[in-house]
Amino acid sequence: MQVSYFHVAADVPDAIGSVEGPDAAVVIDVLRATTTIAWALHNGAEAVQAFADLDELRLQSRNWPEQTRLLLGERGGRMLEGFDLGNSPVAVIPEVVQGKRLFMSTTNGTRALQRVRDVSVVMTVALPNRQAVAQRLLRDQPERVWMVGSGWEGTYSLEDSLAAGALADALVAAGAQVANDELQAALALWAQWKHDPEACLRVASHGQRLTRLGNHDADFSCCAGLDQLSVVPTQTEPGVLRAIRV
Amino acid sequence: MQVSYFHVAADVPDAIGSVEGPDAAVVIDVLRATTTIAWALHNGAEAVQAFADLDELRLQSRNWPEQTRLLLGERGGRMLEGFDLGNSPVAVIPEVVQGKRLFMSTTNGTRALQRVRDVSVVMTVALPNRQAVAQRLLRDQPERVWMVGSGWEGTYSLEDSLAAGALADALVAAGAQVANDELQAALALWAQWKHDPEACLRVASHGQRLTRLGNHDADFSCCAGLDQLSVVPTQTEPGVLRAIRV
Repeated sequence: MQVSYFHVAADVPDAIGSVEGPDAAVVIDVLRATTTIAWALHNGAEAVQAFADLDELRLQSRNWPEQTRLLLGERGGRMLEGFDLGNSPVAVIPEVVQGKRLFMSTTNGTRALQRVRDVSVVMTVALPNRQAVAQRLLRDQPERVWMVGSGWEGTYSLEDSLAAGALADALVAAGAQVANDELQAALALWAQWKHDPEACLRVASHGQRLTRLGNHDADFSCCAGLDQLSVVPTQTEPGVLRAIRV
Repeated sequence: MQVSYFHVAADVPDAIGSVEGPDAAVVIDVLRATTTIAWALHNGAEAVQAFADLDELRLQSRNWPEQTRLLLGERGGRMLEGFDLGNSPVAVIPEVVQGKRLFMSTTNGTRALQRVRDVSVVMTVALPNRQAVAQRLLRDQPERVWMVGSGWEGTYSLEDSLAAGALADALVAAGAQVANDELQAALALWAQWKHDPEACLRVASHGQRLTRLGNHDADFSCCAGLDQLSVVPTQTEPGVLRAIRV
């Protein structure tokens, strides 16, 4: 298994669908989209459907029965008007999401999902389901795995690289190979912060941005919680993620 | 002092020349342009003039007396036809470069230099003059420092990030502040590899590329040699770097 990491969607090479393209893609948005997706599916959401465009999200969600849909979204870390929830992983509790389709748009995470949606296997990872995703990859042994971070408005993000390093650490320990410089650096980042991932999330510029918006202690704690969930959010149709347990 | 690091020229924000812009820029191309620049100036070259365009380089160099000029360049790690030297730091010995103007073009390093050429203070750094550049910055205390890596064909490079971390480590120890996620990650990279920077250079994709081209042991050893030179290559006119000793 050859594993690469790309900081943001724009860095992903044009090889998707070609023989040099990836056999599996793993999307990362630690603060907070892929953490929220993991928790929502763990807590019984029917599926999460991701949108880059808000109008498209509103349009599609209207085709869904009102009592079984929820609209999730944020821009700049704040909840959107007319939406049911923001982008907090601590809000997607079973009482709220059980059996529901979550229509989700986020500032950055959706772009990465869109960039890799044509890869034959697409998953999302966050720290709480890091080991679950690693186990799935080690079981299925795709030849080339591309991890894609979400970043912040197109730029590098520390917390996504931390999670890339965390996932790679588990894969490399089982024999996977590091296929680019970005992943080497992510491994060093994980080595430095693995004993206190929450501190890394708080030092990251996006973590500092959340802190400036108000108290997000519960979010930080949730997003930094390692290996707590067995769910692997997996794309089952374009843009739609469902819970697959390892 | 607020210190940021940008992986490649394309990541550098458009704030140069504005009030949010940098007061000093430090260009990094560990393999091998800024290592070669440091050694060439240490060994007595009159100046190094950097070019992105080869035709422009040839044109400008013809205005210079033949006996006091040298043409340096590579594309894809190989020397260019009609040039005197490639891009190896072990070739710029005193007998060759003393008193000469070096007209230099490299695959990636020149782009970063061009991107920041309008910043009021522009320096180059590599591992051999890491401490010299740190001392200069700590003496002059520019408010905002932007480090810019060269990368490889527009993508992230491990070895430039290692040097960014090495320089930042010296600055942060003296009270400088880390101003972006890229620099936080570079510090983690340096923490992991500082006891064996040559191993990091060899594991980097560009290091592997050099190894495939042939034996580059002397180059690796030279590029990984930490804190050996007191020279700070400094832009004295657009595109022209001269030796300033701390």
